[in-house]
Amino acid sequence: MQETGKTKRAFEMLSELLERACALQTALTLFEWDNETLAPREASALTARTQGVLSAEYQKIMIGEEMRNCLKACDGEDLSEKEQAIVREAKKERDELCAIPPEEYRAYQELISRSTRIWTEAKKKQDFDLFAPTLKKVIDCQKKFASYRAKEGQKLYDVMLDDYEKGFDMEKLDEFFLLLKRELVPFLHEIQKSGIEIDDHFLSGNYPEDKQREAAVLLAGYVGFDFSRGVLAVSEHPFTTNLHNRDVRITTNFKERVDSSLFSVIHESGHAIYEMGIADDLTQTLVGQGASMGMHESQSRFFENILGRRESFWVPVYEKLQEIFPEELGEIALAQFVKAVNKVSAGLIRTEADELTYGLHVLVRYELEKELIEQDLPVEKIPTLWADKYEEYLGIRPQNVSEGVLQDIHWAQGSFGYFPSYALGSAFGAQILSAMEKEMDIDRLLADGRISEIREYLRKHIHRYGKRKPARTLLKEMTGEDFNPEYYVSYLKGKYGKIYGLQS
Amino acid sequence: MQETGKTKRAFEMLSELLERACALQTALTLFEWDNETLAPREASALTARTQGVLSAEYQKIMIGEEMRNCLKACDGEDLSEKEQAIVREAKKERDELCAIPPEEYRAYQELISRSTRIWTEAKKKQDFDLFAPTLKKVIDCQKKFASYRAKEGQKLYDVMLDDYEKGFDMEKLDEFFLLLKRELVPFLHEIQKSGIEIDDHFLSGNYPEDKQREAAVLLAGYVGFDFSRGVLAVSEHPFTTNLHNRDVRITTNFKERVDSSLFSVIHESGHAIYEMGIADDLTQTLVGQGASMGMHESQSRFFENILGRRESFWVPVYEKLQEIFPEELGEIALAQFVKAVNKVSAGLIRTEADELTYGLHVLVRYELEKELIEQDLPVEKIPTLWADKYEEYLGIRPQNVSEGVLQDIHWAQGSFGYFPSYALGSAFGAQILSAMEKEMDIDRLLADGRISEIREYLRKHIHRYGKRKPARTLLKEMTGEDFNPEYYVSYLKGKYGKIYGLQS
Repeated sequence: MQETGKTKRAFEMLSELLERACALQTALTLFEWDNETLAPREASALTARTQGVLSAEYQKIMIGEEMRNCLKACDGEDLSEKEQAIVREAKKERDELCAIPPEEYRAYQELISRSTRIWTEAKKKQDFDLFAPTLKKVIDCQKKFASYRAKEGQKLYDVMLDDYEKGFDMEKLDEFFLLLKRELVPFLHEIQKSGIEIDDHFLSGNYPEDKQREAAVLLAGYVGFDFSRGVLAVSEHPFTTNLHNRDVRITTNFKERVDSSLFSVIHESGHAIYEMGIADDLTQTLVGQGASMGMHESQSRFFENILGRRESFWVPVYEKLQEIFPEELGEIALAQFVKAVNKVSAGLIRTEADELTYGLHVLVRYELEKELIEQDLPVEKIPTLWADKYEEYLGIRPQNVSEGVLQDIHWAQGSFGYFPSYALGSAFGAQILSAMEKEMDIDRLLADGRISEIREYLRKHIHRYGKRKPARTLLKEMTGEDFNPEYYVSYLKGKYGKIYGLQS
Repeated sequence: MQETGKTKRAFEMLSELLERACALQTALTLFEWDNETLAPREASALTARTQGVLSAEYQKIMIGEEMRNCLKACDGEDLSEKEQAIVREAKKERDELCAIPPEEYRAYQELISRSTRIWTEAKKKQDFDLFAPTLKKVIDCQKKFASYRAKEGQKLYDVMLDDYEKGFDMEKLDEFFLLLKRELVPFLHEIQKSGIEIDDHFLSGNYPEDKQREAAVLLAGYVGFDFSRGVLAVSEHPFTTNLHNRDVRITTNFKERVDSSLFSVIHESGHAIYEMGIADDLTQTLVGQGASMGMHESQSRFFENILGRRESFWVPVYEKLQEIFPEELGEIALAQFVKAVNKVSAGLIRTEADELTYGLHVLVRYELEKELIEQDLPVEKIPTLWADKYEEYLGIRPQNVSEGVLQDIHWAQGSFGYFPSYALGSAFGAQILSAMEKEMDIDRLLADGRISEIREYLRKHIHRYGKRKPARTLLKEMTGEDFNPEYYVSYLKGKYGKIYGLQS
């Protein structure tokens, strides 16, 4: 009994430390949001100083003596499952921070700040050589840091992958991406050879910004973004962030192609609905966020693609969209609209990819990352390899590096192992869909305007748990089986085979 | 020499502590800004927890042992004037925080949070009795806290006044407000009896919000608000805040009467120009804000009233305003517009008061605060006393407490001693004007569109110093004499005597 009391007391002390750490993180989140959406141009250098000080305060708490002692004393088994999850996340975060010597970490942060600046310039100038030496340094640093954290015999790229998606190492991902390559590349070629051209000209053109904003509010609200607990703003690149489960924020921006902003806002709403659905007793703790990158992406893509690109989704809402854009969509029938937003069109830019080809963009990056980290591929070789792979998998070749290897900021930011989560998210979604279909008629619910029942189902099985359980466990408990990428492939081939009249 | 080194080292350690404290304050400022301008409705309770934790972190640094030792060791005279000012401000802040036992302070914060909620409700219901018991508690608390901090023989209200405006105690303020009462009350009655009615009907009516926003951007930019270092947003009550001198933010809102938003944005721009003008080596330190409440208000009112309500001010910009509101102002001549925005009209609401009567609104509050703090005036008596004073000084009587004593949030927030700064600001402004007029032709500069020269003059003499020197010292150095309220009275009587055809 005494031992129990001791562990409980240690956990209370831990909670106090973590409350301080989380408050600092929340402040940092607000600064990031503000920088992306509002802060004036000249503010960044001085605000970065403030952010640096707050970030150092956070690290001081996490790597401090007190935290170490608390975590040590929290090893007892008499903690609840939720408490154990908090201890687990705290240990993970602490281990990551402790693994890297502070002076190396500071130097790295400076490198990353320089690297993103140089990437921006190189992308503008379409000049990979400008970026290559810095990219090399970033990769070397990332490898060194991974080596500090690698367990006995663990491969470096596996260390990186583990940060984003626990339990998905190269062995697992090779299997996954090989399946995509084997099944989807020939399938895409069939579509390309089918000669069928879907008309989507009406999605481009004169869609005024204020009307796009109106449509964004309509669609976010329709899928279940709760404006009393959330904010919609504009930023250069759309993203979702949150201070806690009652303050979840999404951004969008407005493009020439209206489907770009419509589906982007549904996508970010999917992320937001996840965060809004996290249980009240978890928010503002270390387990009060989504389970993993991939699981988050599964929810955003579920809303964007699996629900959002179905005809039944639009039944209750398409007329309202037509009212917002009477000239542009007034004459376009629902079926025609839905067909257009499902047009397959292999392109060069990942963020503009359609649902079918998206995974192939990620495949290219996965293969290159593996070579860069595990086989010391010289960075100078990336552009050609990149172009070759795009040609092989998607049938098109970038004309310059800005629409090739320089399109994504991730590597400049030192994010290696992140990309696979995007594709995993889609695959999780397909597996989730298959499980749901056994219990409910998705099309019926959507057409009846009962999307809230689908949302509630996801909340019950995924959202409310936050990080209490690993993503792979959540998936297993919800669908009754471990991750299985076959669902993804058969979902895609079924859906697009039908649209393009192919035998499946 | 060794002593010098020791003090310098102590100051360096102090600077590190203050850097952490300032970063936390900056985060708290951003949260406040966000709460007022953007945060979703349901967020407040959880965000308040984060704010509470950050605020406690701040206090821990300020009242801690380390800070005490550093400040003690910084007593040497071998610090620069700027360093001494930082030490002075740190001591002041620390003394204030240390004076109140933490548990009493926490209880007080809860009281204030309750009190502002009850005030909101009482104001809505026009029911002073609902608020009175809580107001009594707030006053008792404020008196107790002031007693902790009072120097030998110091009056409690003087302690409070000192927080907002160093060097302005009751003796000084009695003199000031008696002068206003003696000179302005009869002068206002003369105007009221003059029978002259200025036509300002065109300022009300159909001024669309987006056009008001356009005008706000025009006027803020015209007076010198630098949008590359600032943000303009919308909130229920206009205010100015800043993260540092390169991130200064103002808000406005849009009313039926267009002059309300036009002059409000000029007013807030005045505050912002002050903060933007603070020297680079002071920002992000404890002396990197305006010198005092009153000095801040002097700058906002200088731009709003002393410059903004002159005909010459509008010469370079009135046509642009007409272009924004062609239907409303297209036919209104410049002189007619300027006359209308200088109409004297004794009203019940301080924040809507004209330049002449504004000081009398503050007079009422000053007299009541003095009685509440120094003579134990029972709170139940406030409404009648309030109404009597309004009748005596302004010639009108509130019909209910919502347009009477419940109009301002200040007392509910525990701010006693704050109101006088508003009137002092106007008086500082008039004294500053008189000094400037000896060196430059204000009307000439304004009419020639050279308002930047006026702004630069203010920056040189006031803004850049931040809190390095007390407001009263700044005023003295700039104008060559100590505070003298005669300038204010003669400015008002001269200006409005002319407008209303009275002999001065």
